Amino acid sequence: MLGLMQASLFEVVAIWSVLLIALLGLGYAVFLRSQVMRHDKGTAAMQEVWGAIRSGADAYLSRQLKSILPLIFVLTGVLFFSVYIIPPTDEALTRFSRFSPDMVKLIVGFGRAAAFVMGAFFSLAVGQFGMRMAVDGNVRVASASRRSFAEALKIAYRTGTVTGMLTDGLGLFGGTIIFIVFGIASPDVLLGFGFGGTLLALFMRVGGGIYTKAADVGADLVGKVEKNIPEDDPRNAAVIADLVGDNVGDCAGMAADIFESYEVTIVSALILGLALVSLTGELKWIIFPLLVRGIGVVSSIIGTYLVKGKKGAKGGEDAFKSINRGFYASAAISVFAFMILAHFYMHEWRAFLSVGMGIVLAILIDEITKYFTHTHHAPVKEIASASRTGSATLILRGLSIGLESAAWQFIVIALTITAAVMIYWGQPVVYILYGVAMTGIGMLTLTGNNVAMDSFGPIADNANGIGEMAHLEPEARKIMADLDAVGNTTKAITKGVAIGSAVIAAVSLFGAFLTDVAKAQMQMGLPEALRIMATGIRVSEPIVFVGVLIGAAIPCLFSSLMITAVARAATMIVEEVRKQFHIPGLMEGKVKPDYKKVVDICTVAAQKELVGLALIAVLSPILIGMVLRVEALGGFLAGVIVSGQLLAVFMATAGGAWDNAKKTIEDGLYGGKGSEAHKASVVGDTVGDPLKDTAGPALNPMIKVINLVSVLAAPIIIHYKRTDTGVIIGIVLCLVIIFGAILYSKHGALSFKKKSEATF
Amino acid sequence: MLGLMQASLFEVVAIWSVLLIALLGLGYAVFLRSQVMRHDKGTAAMQEVWGAIRSGADAYLSRQLKSILPLIFVLTGVLFFSVYIIPPTDEALTRFSRFSPDMVKLIVGFGRAAAFVMGAFFSLAVGQFGMRMAVDGNVRVASASRRSFAEALKIAYRTGTVTGMLTDGLGLFGGTIIFIVFGIASPDVLLGFGFGGTLLALFMRVGGGIYTKAADVGADLVGKVEKNIPEDDPRNAAVIADLVGDNVGDCAGMAADIFESYEVTIVSALILGLALVSLTGELKWIIFPLLVRGIGVVSSIIGTYLVKGKKGAKGGEDAFKSINRGFYASAAISVFAFMILAHFYMHEWRAFLSVGMGIVLAILIDEITKYFTHTHHAPVKEIASASRTGSATLILRGLSIGLESAAWQFIVIALTITAAVMIYWGQPVVYILYGVAMTGIGMLTLTGNNVAMDSFGPIADNANGIGEMAHLEPEARKIMADLDAVGNTTKAITKGVAIGSAVIAAVSLFGAFLTDVAKAQMQMGLPEALRIMATGIRVSEPIVFVGVLIGAAIPCLFSSLMITAVARAATMIVEEVRKQFHIPGLMEGKVKPDYKKVVDICTVAAQKELVGLALIAVLSPILIGMVLRVEALGGFLAGVIVSGQLLAVFMATAGGAWDNAKKTIEDGLYGGKGSEAHKASVVGDTVGDPLKDTAGPALNPMIKVINLVSVLAAPIIIHYKRTDTGVIIGIVLCLVIIFGAILYSKHGALSFKKKSEATF
Repeated sequence: MLGLMQASLFEVVAIWSVLLIALLGLGYAVFLRSQVMRHDKGTAAMQEVWGAIRSGADAYLSRQLKSILPLIFVLTGVLFFSVYIIPPTDEALTRFSRFSPDMVKLIVGFGRAAAFVMGAFFSLAVGQFGMRMAVDGNVRVASASRRSFAEALKIAYRTGTVTGMLTDGLGLFGGTIIFIVFGIASPDVLLGFGFGGTLLALFMRVGGGIYTKAADVGADLVGKVEKNIPEDDPRNAAVIADLVGDNVGDCAGMAADIFESYEVTIVSALILGLALVSLTGELKWIIFPLLVRGIGVVSSIIGTYLVKGKKGAKGGEDAFKSINRGFYASAAISVFAFMILAHFYMHEWRAFLSVGMGIVLAILIDEITKYFTHTHHAPVKEIASASRTGSATLILRGLSIGLESAAWQFIVIALTITAAVMIYWGQPVVYILYGVAMTGIGMLTLTGNNVAMDSFGPIADNANGIGEMAHLEPEARKIMADLDAVGNTTKAITKGVAIGSAVIAAVSLFGAFLTDVAKAQMQMGLPEALRIMATGIRVSEPIVFVGVLIGAAIPCLFSSLMITAVARAATMIVEEVRKQFHIPGLMEGKVKPDYKKVVDICTVAAQKELVGLALIAVLSPILIGMVLRVEALGGFLAGVIVSGQLLAVFMATAGGAWDNAKKTIEDGLYGGKGSEAHKASVVGDTVGDPLKDTAGPALNPMIKVINLVSVLAAPIIIHYKRTDTGVIIGIVLCLVIIFGAILYSKHGALSFKKKSEATF
Repeated sequence: MLGLMQASLFEVVAIWSVLLIALLGLGYAVFLRSQVMRHDKGTAAMQEVWGAIRSGADAYLSRQLKSILPLIFVLTGVLFFSVYIIPPTDEALTRFSRFSPDMVKLIVGFGRAAAFVMGAFFSLAVGQFGMRMAVDGNVRVASASRRSFAEALKIAYRTGTVTGMLTDGLGLFGGTIIFIVFGIASPDVLLGFGFGGTLLALFMRVGGGIYTKAADVGADLVGKVEKNIPEDDPRNAAVIADLVGDNVGDCAGMAADIFESYEVTIVSALILGLALVSLTGELKWIIFPLLVRGIGVVSSIIGTYLVKGKKGAKGGEDAFKSINRGFYASAAISVFAFMILAHFYMHEWRAFLSVGMGIVLAILIDEITKYFTHTHHAPVKEIASASRTGSATLILRGLSIGLESAAWQFIVIALTITAAVMIYWGQPVVYILYGVAMTGIGMLTLTGNNVAMDSFGPIADNANGIGEMAHLEPEARKIMADLDAVGNTTKAITKGVAIGSAVIAAVSLFGAFLTDVAKAQMQMGLPEALRIMATGIRVSEPIVFVGVLIGAAIPCLFSSLMITAVARAATMIVEEVRKQFHIPGLMEGKVKPDYKKVVDICTVAAQKELVGLALIAVLSPILIGMVLRVEALGGFLAGVIVSGQLLAVFMATAGGAWDNAKKTIEDGLYGGKGSEAHKASVVGDTVGDPLKDTAGPALNPMIKVINLVSVLAAPIIIHYKRTDTGVIIGIVLCLVIIFGAILYSKHGALSFKKKSEATF
C-alpha cells in the first residue's frame, strides 16, 4: 500500500477508519439537516420575508457560480497540462511503477486537475450548502422561538452544526482519499486540492465581505443616520439585502475560510510528514495527523450533539453555558484520545506536545481577542469613554488598540513557533516545520464546533430580523434577541481562531515551499541543487529583501482595494434607497419598497471585484518568481505573511472593539441611544465594519492562495531561465494582467462608474 | 595617514577639504544668523506674544535636557566600558600600533564614548539651536511682513537655512573627523556617533510629536469644536502651547530627524566603504561618499543663497518659484560635480549611478507623496467628496488611500534596491549594500535645502500666529497667510523625503550589521566564524522567522503607545482650557488666560514617555540577540524595517490627505466652513494629526536606533553564550525593564492618572 513500504496492519486499518470517520461526519450532517427541516416555517408573514431572503441568497449564489466557473475551468486545464512542463516526481514514478512513464504523466496530470476541482468544489459546497442551510434554518428558529427558548436554541445550533460537519467531513475526506490513491506521490496532488479550496474561499470571502458590508453600511447610512428609523425597518429598501448579506458574509464566507484553513493545515502536515517519512522510514508521521483529525471529528460529533437548551432554559446565559459545555466535552475527549495515541502508537510525546500547543494557542488567541474586543475589558471601555470627546478621539483610541493587539498577536505566534523549535530541539528544520504544521492541526481540531458556533451568529441574527419584519409577539422577540446576542459573542470568538490558524497554516505552507523547492532542485540536478535547503531564504541577500518588500506591499494594496469596493457599492445603495424613499406611500408603510433592486446591486458589486483580486493573488507570486527567481519568492512569501498578519489583526480588532463600544453605549452608557456619545460610536462602528468583515478576513485566504501558488509554481521557476522566450512572454503577460486588475479593481467597471458618478 | 595604506596626495587634500567644507557650512550658518538677527522685532504687542512663545520653547528645551541627560550619561559609560567586554578590533590594533594594547583599549573606549556624546550633542544642537533660531526668526518675519513680501520671505527662508546648514555642517564634520582620527578602525566609533545622533533624534521626535499634537488637538477640540472660536484666538489658553508645539515638532523634531538620517547614511557608507577598501585595496570607496557630501554642502550654500523674493514679489506663487529655483540650482551643481568626480577620480560610473538613483528616488517619493496628499489629485478629492456622506466614509477613504500609498512606496524602495543589484551585477553582496548606502547619500545630498524648506513651515506659521494675536494690519496679515500656505507645501514635501531616506538608511545599516557580524565572528575564531556572511540571515530558519515576527510587533506597539500618549495629554489640555474659560472676563477678552499652565502640561506630558519608549527601542534588540542569537536578531531587524515602513507611510499619507481634504473644503468645496461636510473633514484631520505628526515620524529614528543598537551589540552577542550567568541576568533585566516601560507608557505616570481620571 501507498507504494512506499509495508504499512503495519494497524496503519492500514487506521487510514481506512479515518476515511470512514470523514463519511460519518458527512452522514451526521445529513442527519442533522433532516432533523432541522422537520420543523415548521411559521406564519405566512414570516415565510414571505424568508422567501425574499432566500431568493436573494439564491441569486447571489448562482451569480457567483457563473463568475467563478470560467476561471476554475481555465485553471483546471493549466494544472492538467502543467505535467508536460514539470515532469512527475521520482516518487510518482515509484508509486505507479507498473505503468509506463507516459501513462504516469497522464495519471499525475489528471490527479492534479481532479484534486483542484475537488478542493474548489468542496470549498464551494461548504459555503453554498452552509448558507442555504442557514437560510432554511433561520425561519424555523424564528418559528420555534414562539414556542420555547430551548427549542429555538437547539434548532439554531444544529443548523450551524450541519455546516460544521460538512467542513470537517469534506476536508478530511479529500486529504485522506488523495493520500490513499497517490501515497508518496501525493504532495503535488495535495497542493492542487489545497489551491482549489483556498481560491474558492478567497472568492467567497471577497464576494461575501463586499456584499455584506455594502448592504450593512448602505442600510445604516440612510436608515439609521439620515432617516432615523430603526434597524431592520421594512421601509428601508436595503433591509433584505442586509439580511442576505449576513448569510453571505458570515456563513458562506466564514465557512469556506475555515474549511480552507482546515484543508491547508492537513495538506502541509501531510507534505512535511512525507518528508519525515522519507527521512526516517517511519510511516507514523503521516498517519498521526490523519488520526488526530479523525479523533477531532468524532469528538465534535459528540460535543455538538450535547448542545440543547435544558427544558427550563430561558436566556443568553443558559445558551452560552450549553454551547460551552459542548465545546469543552469535545476538547476533553480529543486531548484524552491524543494522549493514548501518543503513548501507544507514536511512542513519543513530541507530536502530542505540538498538537497540544495548537490548543493552547487557540485559547491564548481567544483570550487576546476577548481582552481587546469584549465589553468587560479596558480597551472597549476606553473607546466608549473616548466617545464623549467626539468621534475623532474614539477612532484614534480604536486605531491604537488595533495596533497594540497586532503587536501581541505577533508575539503569541512567535512564541508558538519558538515552542516548536524547543520541542524538536537539535533536530533538522523539517521536524520543526512539521511541529508547526501539527500546531495548526491542533488549533483546528474542533473545527466542527467552531463553525457551528460561528454559523449560529447569522442564523440567530436573521431569525431576529424575520421576527422584526413579521411583527412577531414580544416574548418570541425577546428570545430571538437573546439568541442574537449570544451569536455575536460566539462569532467574535471564532474570528480570532480563523486569523490565528491562517497565520500558522501560512507558516507551515512556507515550510512546504522550502521542502518542495529543495526537492525540485535536487531532482532536476540543477547547479543550485539543494541550494535552498542548505542555505535557506536569506533576507541578507538584497534581492530577497526586495522580495520581502514587494510581498509586504500586496496585503496593503489588497486591503485598500477591498475597502474602496465596499465604499463604492455602499454609495450606490444609499442612492437607491434614497430614491425609493420618495415612492408615494412608502414612508407610511402602505407600499413596500423594491427589495430586489438593492439585492441586485449588492450581488453585482460583490462579483465585479472577484476576478481582478484573485488574479493579483495568483499572478503576483508567479511574476516575482520568474523575474527575481525562487529565493526572492521565498522572501516575498515572508513579506506577505508579516504584513498580512499585521493588517488582518489590526483591522479585525479595531473593528470589533468599535462595534462593542457602540453596543455598550446603546446599553445605556454615556447617555445611551441618541446621545452625542452614541453618534460618535456609530461613526466608529461604520469605519470598523469593512475593516473587520471585508478587508481583514479576506487577507486570510489571500495569504494562503499566494503561498500555494508559490509552492505549485516553484518547480517551473527553477526549471526555466529568466531569458527563455516563454518566460519573457509570461512575465510581460503577468505584468499587464496584474496592472489591468489593479486599475479595474480601483476604478470599478465602466458601467459602474457611469451609474455612481463619484458620489463617494 | 589613516593607518591603512598610502593615500594619494589628492585623497589627503580631499579629506581635509571636506572637513573645511563642513566648517564652511557652519560658518555660513553663523553668517546667516547674524543677518537675520539684525532685523527688528516689531511692536510691543508682537514682542509680548513672542516672549510667551520663547519662554514656552525654553521651558520645553531645558526640561527635555534634564530628562535626557541621565540616560546619556549612563550610555556614555556603557559605551566606554564596552571595550572591556569586546576587545578592540584587529584594525584598531593596526591603526594604533605604536601604542600598547591596553592603551589601544583605552583609546577605542574613549573614542566610542566621545563619538556617542558628539553624535548626541550634535543632534541636540541641531534640534535646539534650530528651534531657538526659528523662534528668533518668526517675530522678525512678522515684523518684516509689515514692510514687504520679499523681505519677509528672505528672512523666513534664511532662518530655516541656518538649521539646514547646521545639519549639513555638523553631520559632515563628525563623520569626517572620526575617519581622520580612527582611519580603518573607525567603524566602531562611527557607530557610537550614529547611535548618539539617532537616540537624541528619537527623543526629539517622540517628545516633539507628543507636545505638538497634544497642544494642537487639545486647542482645536475646545476652541474650534466646542466654543466655535477661530484658530489662534487669544482667549484660548492652549494657543501659545500650540504655537510652541509647531516649533517643537516641526523644527526641533524634524531637524534632528533629518540630521540623524544624514548622519546614519554617512556612517553606513563609510563602514561599507571600508569593507570594500579592505577587499579591493582602493581608498576611493570611502573618499567618494565624503566628497559627494562635501559637494552637496557647497551647492546647498549657493542654492539657498539664491532664494530671495524679487523686489516686486507679491504672493505665494513667487515665493514658491524662488525656493524651487534655489533647489534646482543646487541640484544641477551637484549632479555636474558628481559626474566630474566619477570620470576623473573614480574612473567608473557605478558609484555615480547609485548616487543618481538616490536623486531619482527622492523625486519619485516626492511625486507619490504629492499624488496621494496634494489637493490637485484624485485621492484628496475623493476624501473630500466622501465628506458628504459623513465622517465615517471620509475616514474609510483615508485609510484606504494610506494603505495604497504604503504599497506603492514599498514597490519604489524595492525598485531602488533592485537598481543597486543591477548596477553592481555579479559583484559580491557588499558592493550592492554599498550601492544602497550611496543611494542614501544621494537622496540626502541637498539636506541643507530640505531642512531650510521644512523649517520655513513653522516659522511662517508662527509669524502668522503672532500676527493674529498682535492684531497686525490686514496687508501684513495677507503676506503672512501666503507665506504660511507656502510653508505647508514645502513641509509636506520634505516629510516624504524624510521617510524614504529613513528606510534606505535602515537598509544600509542592515548591510552594516551583516558585515559587522561576519567580522566579529571571524575575529573571535568562533565555530560559527563567517557563518552569517556565508549563509546570511535565513528566514527559512524557524527561529529567524520568530525574530521577524517579534520585530514586526515593535513598530505596532510603539505607534499604539504614541497615539495613546497624545490622546491622554490632549484630554488634560481640554480640561484645563475648559476650566480657564470660566474665569470671569476671559471670554470678553478683558482677562488673559494662563497660557503657561497649558505649556507646562504639554512639556511634562512630552517628557513622561521619552525614557520608556527609548528603553523599548534600545533594549528589545539586545534581548532578542541574547535569547534567540544573532541570526534571529537579523530577522528581527528585517521585521522592524518592514512593519515600520508600512506604518510610517500609511500614517503619514492618511494624515496628510485628511488634512488637505479639510483644507479644500475650507476653501469652499461642498459648502465650505461650517457645513456638515466641513465637520466631517475636521474629524478626519483630528484623527490624522497624531498619526502624521507623532506616531509616523517617530518610527523613522526608532527603526534606526534599533538597527544601530543591533550592530553595536552584535559582537557581544556573538562572544557570549546564552547560558552564561551574566547573559541570564541581562535577559531577565531586559525583560523586566521592557515590560515595565510598556506598562508605564501605556498607563502614564501615576501622578498623571490621578489628574486626568480616565476622561479619555
